[in-house]
This record gives sequence, C-alpha cells and structure tokens, in this order.
Amino acid sequence: VNARPPVDFWFDFSSPYSYIASEWVEAVAARHGRAVRWHAILLGATFQAAGLKPPIDYALKREYSIADFERSARFEGVPYALPPQFPVATQNAARVFWWLASRDTAEAARWAHAGLRAYFTRGVALHEPAALRVLCAESGLDADAAEAAWNDPQWKLRLKAENEAAVAAGVFGAPTFGIDGELFWGNDRKPQIERWLASGPF
Amino acid sequence: VNARPPVDFWFDFSSPYSYIASEWVEAVAARHGRAVRWHAILLGATFQAAGLKPPIDYALKREYSIADFERSARFEGVPYALPPQFPVATQNAARVFWWLASRDTAEAARWAHAGLRAYFTRGVALHEPAALRVLCAESGLDADAAEAAWNDPQWKLRLKAENEAAVAAGVFGAPTFGIDGELFWGNDRKPQIERWLASGPF
Repeated sequence: VNARPPVDFWFDFSSPYSYIASEWVEAVAARHGRAVRWHAILLGATFQAAGLKPPIDYALKREYSIADFERSARFEGVPYALPPQFPVATQNAARVFWWLASRDTAEAARWAHAGLRAYFTRGVALHEPAALRVLCAESGLDADAAEAAWNDPQWKLRLKAENEAAVAAGVFGAPTFGIDGELFWGNDRKPQIERWLASGPF
Repeated sequence: VNARPPVDFWFDFSSPYSYIASEWVEAVAARHGRAVRWHAILLGATFQAAGLKPPIDYALKREYSIADFERSARFEGVPYALPPQFPVATQNAARVFWWLASRDTAEAARWAHAGLRAYFTRGVALHEPAALRVLCAESGLDADAAEAAWNDPQWKLRLKAENEAAVAAGVFGAPTFGIDGELFWGNDRKPQIERWLASGPF
C-alpha cells in the first residue's frame, strides 16, 4: 500500500465548529485515501497563548456566532443543539481522550465522537464528573478507570504537552486541520481541504 | 419582472477577504436574479464598536492569516498580492465611494472594484492622496472633484453614518453579506450563500 499521510485534526470538546467538522472529516479524508489523526486540545490554552477570546465573548459577535453555529450545522446536515451550559471546561474529557489514545487511537476517536455528540446534541455536561462518568459507561468505558485517568497527573501533563505541541505547530483555534504540512483553520475551510486532498497544493 | 431583493455587501477597501468576495459576489448574485447593493465601510469603526482587532494584530494568527489571504485568493482564482503597506486607512476611498453612490450606484460599484483591485494586485497606496488621485483619473473620475469630495464634511459624515448603520444592522466584520434579512460574515460563507440564493433558507 502506498499510504498517504494522515489528516491531523485538532479539536476541543466544547467547540461547535469542531463538532461539525468532526462529523465530516473522516469521510472526506477516507475519500482521498487518508486516515485522521485526532488531537484533543483545550481552546482556552491556545486562546491564552494567542491572546484571543472566544467569539461569543464579544457582544456584537455573540448573537451572530450562536446563529452561525446552528446554520453551519444545518448546512452540513449535522444534528445540533446549543448546550444549555456553553462553553464548558473540557479538560477531563480531553484527558480521557489521551488516556485512550495511548492504547488505541481508534478507541480515542470513538470517544471524541461520543463526547462531541453528547454535548452538542443532548447537552451532556462534560465538565461535571457525574455526567462524564455516565457518558463513559454509555460509551463502553470503565467509568472508575476513566475518572482515575482524568485525575492522574500523567494525563494532566500529557494534555498540557499536547496543548503546547499544538501551539508550537501553529494552532491557535479549533478545528484546525494539518495536511501535508499545511494548516487549515475552521470548519469553513472544508472546500479548500477537499480540493487539496483531491488535487494537491493550489 | 419579479424583482428579488438585492444582496447587501459590506466591504472595506483594505480587507483581503472583502476583495476576494468582491470578485465573485456579482456573478453569484446574478445567477440567482439578484443585484448587489455595495456598502463601503471602515473595519476600524466596526472593530472598535465590537472590541475586535484585525487577525494580523495577533502574533500567532498573523503568519497564518497572511498565508490564508493568498491561499483563499488562489482557491477562487483571483489575482492577489499582499500590498507592501497593509492595512492602510481607507476613509478617503470610502468617501469617494459614497460621493459616487449618491449619483450612480453602478459608478460607485465600479470604483469599489477599481480601488480593491488597485490595492490588492498592484499595492496602490489608497491612503496617500497623490496615489488616490492617480487612481481616480485612471478610473475616469475627475481627481479634483474626488479630492474635494473626500475632504468634504458631507461625505465624512455620510461615511460615519454608514459605519453606524452597518453596526446597527449587526455588521462587525467584512465582508458581510445580507440576504433576505440573514447576515453571512466572511468570504468563506460562499457555499452557504450559494445554497441560500438557490433554494432559500436552510
């Protein structure tokens, strides 16, 4: 097999555009013979590094952004509901991701989907340990082991290192896609990503 | 004729994504029986109202943004070169726009194209009165009359009023498109705009 390099996909569990993109990135990549390499990060860390704030923190952008999340989900045919609590702290969900990724990247990707879908279709409070434990169990994980992982300094440090690696790679927002050394920021870069995957650099 | 409402198009003469969108907005609108209603605004005014800064003011976003301007232009097949002086103050070019629009909106749209193309393909320094006078003459305008217009309190006030009207309409960045009461922000909303124009709200 002449394996083509994977598509890197940086996401935050609390990012609506990350969720929307997470629903098409694997199909788009697969259509062009690529796998997806998932990276759970904390937007709070990249925002802090970049001196940025989330769009809904700007009064004039807030209403537009909330409407655009929904419209962009409808545009992609992705079920979506603004969670009652938004945004939320996602470090526990992200640590579970890296704990799983250390043994099985496919299992980590399944957890990424489970967490993003739970939050953005059912409003599951990912920041609340009790709700996260229930989601882990629903997802076939050992909730005790998952909770131990998100409290374990090993996975806290791993997530911190992954945030730093993302910033070092030039990531300042989510979703960000890395393809053949080129970065694409935003769910709305889908047409450019599709062209790049189909016919190379343009 | 069963006239459909026009597409409102807010732009700034110094905005790369406005320039790129200005090269496709008329063709896309015309394909769906719509005219384009152009609005020259100052991003500085909407940024100030919204508490925002341009993307290149953020260190981590700067390199990506400059590369993304170029890549997005190539993606649309639009000639583009980052101007040697970027961004520049565009109030004089915008006042000329509103002066022309008061007598002929088509002439104002031609001026919009002339200014955007001059700045983003030849680096013409729109903020320098001498360069702007040359551009006016090249564009078939009376340079003395144009300079009188950009120094005239009437057109200064008109531009100020147009900036305020844009902010009141929910505009916080450029390009912004208004279609049937719906706002779309960004050159990258083109696929959503095309779907809306083709088949209505989604």
